[in-house]
Amino acid sequence: MTDAPDRAGNLYLVPNTLDFGVPVAPGTLPDLRETLPDGVIRIAARLTHWVAENAKTTRAFLKRVDTVVPLAQPLQTLSIVELPRPAKGSAVAAAPDLRALLAPLFKGHDLGLISEAGLPAVADPGAVLVQAAHAQHLRVIALSGPSSLMLALAASGLNGQSFAFVGYLPVAPAQRAVRIRELEGVSRRAMQTQLMIETPYRNEALLEALLGTLQATTTLSVSCGLTLAHGFTRSDTVQEWRRQPSALPADVPAVFALLAR
Amino acid sequence: MTDAPDRAGNLYLVPNTLDFGVPVAPGTLPDLRETLPDGVIRIAARLTHWVAENAKTTRAFLKRVDTVVPLAQPLQTLSIVELPRPAKGSAVAAAPDLRALLAPLFKGHDLGLISEAGLPAVADPGAVLVQAAHAQHLRVIALSGPSSLMLALAASGLNGQSFAFVGYLPVAPAQRAVRIRELEGVSRRAMQTQLMIETPYRNEALLEALLGTLQATTTLSVSCGLTLAHGFTRSDTVQEWRRQPSALPADVPAVFALLAR
Repeated sequence: MTDAPDRAGNLYLVPNTLDFGVPVAPGTLPDLRETLPDGVIRIAARLTHWVAENAKTTRAFLKRVDTVVPLAQPLQTLSIVELPRPAKGSAVAAAPDLRALLAPLFKGHDLGLISEAGLPAVADPGAVLVQAAHAQHLRVIALSGPSSLMLALAASGLNGQSFAFVGYLPVAPAQRAVRIRELEGVSRRAMQTQLMIETPYRNEALLEALLGTLQATTTLSVSCGLTLAHGFTRSDTVQEWRRQPSALPADVPAVFALLAR
Repeated sequence: MTDAPDRAGNLYLVPNTLDFGVPVAPGTLPDLRETLPDGVIRIAARLTHWVAENAKTTRAFLKRVDTVVPLAQPLQTLSIVELPRPAKGSAVAAAPDLRALLAPLFKGHDLGLISEAGLPAVADPGAVLVQAAHAQHLRVIALSGPSSLMLALAASGLNGQSFAFVGYLPVAPAQRAVRIRELEGVSRRAMQTQLMIETPYRNEALLEALLGTLQATTTLSVSCGLTLAHGFTRSDTVQEWRRQPSALPADVPAVFALLAR
């Protein structure tokens, strides 16, 4: 194992806003200061080396940073390297060798890791880079920012003292129903809130599957467009949802949470 | 069920900093803008009605807010009501009637819910008030802020695509060892990161229990003092932790995360 030299840079985990992919009129994206701390925006403005889930959305983020705190260097001169995309369904253990991406740290530069939305390395493939940094004994610093999962959990009113995030559910209806019943069983036995996400255009299909499969007494919470002006959270029993359905937008990310009694 | 009138206020879930209880020299607490968005500080400054985990720490928070954005009303004139403490071990289902605490909302006032640290209703008893608000069809808005659990998860490099927070472990050594083995089993079967917390003076005891009980190949991550200048995250196999132990501070909150292979 190579140990980091004393003057190695820090790997900063830089949060992004939660408005990724949300359709808005040009130039009407909210000010970063609505959802990100000044201290974090200042750090982002001075970083010259980045590893990103997506380089294009990172440049869009840095343009927004620049309107609040001028970037230390012109955007075109920044190093932005994309994280290799993991093969679908591959395990974290099968991570590629990412030491090359960490090279700037060994030269004394700080390095930012950024995702398309929210905290990097949570519900996205960034954890492999953080793992590689720890293997080299580099310093990792996670910066404060919005987590759609935690905002949805808080807004749900469901158990926040025991909860699990399980990612995406299977798309095939039969397997999805099996998985929903399994999660409901875990939730009931452990009194544990189960959180899941879906790609926005499938929000409505997931809601239907949940309402068609869960017990009437289970509570289901759906948070759409968290941190956005038109965002909302509805938290109700499955019985109430069935009695009074809500339509979900197909172009805004949603987080689903359930708790069985 | 009473439905909220059209002009009811919003229930804002207001994040707090993560430096609760951390010993610092007077007047040296970091500026709120290091960890909280300006937009959130502005909302906190204009709220005149609060429900708090602890009124004293809420007043301390509002004094810090006032140094950034002047409070809309003098601190002494704000309504700060403490959330009733749940009986030890009581279930969420046994929540007391909290409708009285929501009364300001029906009078058209916005209401803030705040915890001693981090996001309210996550890893604290605040969820019961959020539940009561949903039962009255009131609007709940969770504001962006630091979540020690998500910062620790991101900084761990462990699986961020499937994880669970399980709260506190039993204090009695035999029960604690049983619970640790159970969590390691769940983690291995579901490839699910398991997150837990402990009161700071027991940090060292929990670390010893984890290192004495977990398999050598399990990865253990400990994040201490997240968002603080002297904060750190160590993420290593149990084997490495045993070979090269780290002492943990007894006066700084820590989050523990494990992933079994």
